[in-house]
Amino acid sequence: MYTPREELYDRIEQFQLKLVEHSIDSALIVQAVDLFYFSGTAQNAHLFIPAKGEPVLMVRKSLDRAREESMLKNITQLTSLRKLPEILAEAGYDLGAVAGLEMDVVPAGQYLQYSQVFKNTRFVDISGMVREVRQVKSPYEIKLLKAAGEKINKVYLQIPGMIREGMTEIEVAAQIEGMARAAGHMGYINMRVFNGGPFFGHLLSGPSGAVPSCHDGPTGGTGLVPLHPQGAGLRAIQSGEPIIVDYVGLWDGYITDQSRIFSIGPLSEKLNHACETALKIQSAVIDRIEPGVSGSEMHQLALGLAEDAGLSEYFMGYGRNQARFLGHGVGLELDELPVLAKGLDTKLQPNMVFAIEPKFVFPGEGVVGIENTFVLTETGLERITITPDEPVII
Amino acid sequence: MYTPREELYDRIEQFQLKLVEHSIDSALIVQAVDLFYFSGTAQNAHLFIPAKGEPVLMVRKSLDRAREESMLKNITQLTSLRKLPEILAEAGYDLGAVAGLEMDVVPAGQYLQYSQVFKNTRFVDISGMVREVRQVKSPYEIKLLKAAGEKINKVYLQIPGMIREGMTEIEVAAQIEGMARAAGHMGYINMRVFNGGPFFGHLLSGPSGAVPSCHDGPTGGTGLVPLHPQGAGLRAIQSGEPIIVDYVGLWDGYITDQSRIFSIGPLSEKLNHACETALKIQSAVIDRIEPGVSGSEMHQLALGLAEDAGLSEYFMGYGRNQARFLGHGVGLELDELPVLAKGLDTKLQPNMVFAIEPKFVFPGEGVVGIENTFVLTETGLERITITPDEPVII
Repeated sequence: MYTPREELYDRIEQFQLKLVEHSIDSALIVQAVDLFYFSGTAQNAHLFIPAKGEPVLMVRKSLDRAREESMLKNITQLTSLRKLPEILAEAGYDLGAVAGLEMDVVPAGQYLQYSQVFKNTRFVDISGMVREVRQVKSPYEIKLLKAAGEKINKVYLQIPGMIREGMTEIEVAAQIEGMARAAGHMGYINMRVFNGGPFFGHLLSGPSGAVPSCHDGPTGGTGLVPLHPQGAGLRAIQSGEPIIVDYVGLWDGYITDQSRIFSIGPLSEKLNHACETALKIQSAVIDRIEPGVSGSEMHQLALGLAEDAGLSEYFMGYGRNQARFLGHGVGLELDELPVLAKGLDTKLQPNMVFAIEPKFVFPGEGVVGIENTFVLTETGLERITITPDEPVII
Repeated sequence: MYTPREELYDRIEQFQLKLVEHSIDSALIVQAVDLFYFSGTAQNAHLFIPAKGEPVLMVRKSLDRAREESMLKNITQLTSLRKLPEILAEAGYDLGAVAGLEMDVVPAGQYLQYSQVFKNTRFVDISGMVREVRQVKSPYEIKLLKAAGEKINKVYLQIPGMIREGMTEIEVAAQIEGMARAAGHMGYINMRVFNGGPFFGHLLSGPSGAVPSCHDGPTGGTGLVPLHPQGAGLRAIQSGEPIIVDYVGLWDGYITDQSRIFSIGPLSEKLNHACETALKIQSAVIDRIEPGVSGSEMHQLALGLAEDAGLSEYFMGYGRNQARFLGHGVGLELDELPVLAKGLDTKLQPNMVFAIEPKFVFPGEGVVGIENTFVLTETGLERITITPDEPVII
């Protein structure tokens, strides 16, 4: 399925408004996800977007596929980075005095090459502008996100049948991943953050759920290898402990994020209390949220309820690994805007899509909580992820 | 399993020799894979390596895990990038006048931050030096690579039983991936190249095998979504066509790369001729290669044999998508040095580990060939991947 033409040009227009607003003459988009967002193709290419006028997609490989996949008008071959000025000139353009790059992801060496090739241009960071455009989803995108939510739900509904006492985390994870892939899950999770993120997600049992990691979220897990120190490991699952499955749906490029708690037999009273508190926080956020409130207020609301329940020291992590956020945007990437966190006072807007994930981490015992992906409408939150919220006792 | 102390200090010493040789005072290592290579941990950290003296590992998250995983002596907390000079000063160091960064992977924005924080330091690219050290494997690494080769072999031996006519590529891929993960495959494939690479590998049937992509290799495939335009897609597998399975083994962080051809019923004479030619090329390289020859010579040797067989126009791709290489290093990343390619005249050294992948791409028909991972010894190649080479008729 290819991104419709009007969808692409709407997105480009939003971005061009920001370029004009910031007096930036043009931008070179090179990161695969941003390229796909603005051009409909993720082939190896440079997308030139002038502040005003028609973009030029310059493709290194594969030109034929880019021409098939992208509904943009100007698509041409790029043989080397040095040829960029020449190809732009042929199309009647130059970068101008000030040009934007995705400085948060473009490697330093590549940035220095652009500075060599375009000696009269000053490069500035436009990643924030790209992310701001991308955080507000179109009806086309919301439809795809909802479809992804429905598909991962079908996988989640099978999870109770996959778990047996004594199985290792990775054995259960392998079944979930295999089932999702067979149903067309894209597998490859895009993240902007340097050094990447999880593989499929986190499936963690008991104490593993409370093992922190490099990852900024509330959970980490041992992982299989110190080289990728997060996610499912070799621990054998036991009864009476929380098993968190925090996995992404990923169809047609769009990511949903959800967490559910499973256990073989009931959990302790303390863990049940924390589960219920997480659901209460989710309900309170759903009641209170609307366009115009800030992510910071929502984080504060959650923190207050955690405190009321006597659980603030376990909220979103423990000790020095406590995370200071409640939720994060999702879309083509797992770490999109907005971030619902302490100190982030930007007002939430309609058609933003984000995951809200109140979780409690108990060292030596595990993690419990809830995570769902929502779209914010004029009147409140609408669900993208639809699996029943309640912990499942197997 | 944690990387032994002497292994880490040997690697650091090799790298320090290069720093001295190039008159670089120190290096900051921040990419997860390089961090793991030199420190044994991939937690979120900065590793300071002075040209002479003891390194300092400064950890943002998780300090506790870094202390458990890394056998380095100096491990300390890092709260923010701005604190780097202070923490280094406490350890009795500064970056010096010239400091190295992994400019091929560090984002431009982060590089500019370092330039702000360390105003009296000039930063240079040390990614080539890191990659040169990493391309020669230790006995410890070769042992892990061989173990990974044995584990992925067990999965490959099950593949014929997974394929039935009418199944889609992704349905077969899901089974292979699930089986590999259940056996502890790390999943997350590390690559240095900007915009990343495949998810698990390429499973491509018939004409899909000849669909080029952004990926630099001979194969691409449709993939499931234009956002990740490579690998298994929704095509139903038919009889009489080549099915290539080009998947990585990945245990304990170490990657092996191998491709095998399967088919339901026999292939055409033309495709069989190409299969045999690929095996002949592999044999010729095995016969000829030894420390001191260049990757370029091996590429030339392969090209000559492809020409003799009347197949040069299909070798490693077709038309403008023809790749100009025969093999590539593997280790902790899929795209390591050395590259065996036209124009690369560096002499091969003992204990380099690389994949050799002669393949032929026929538009509309598919791809056939062979790929194996080898370690170069004093006397020639030794196999890392051990699955029988011959195409399997199901």
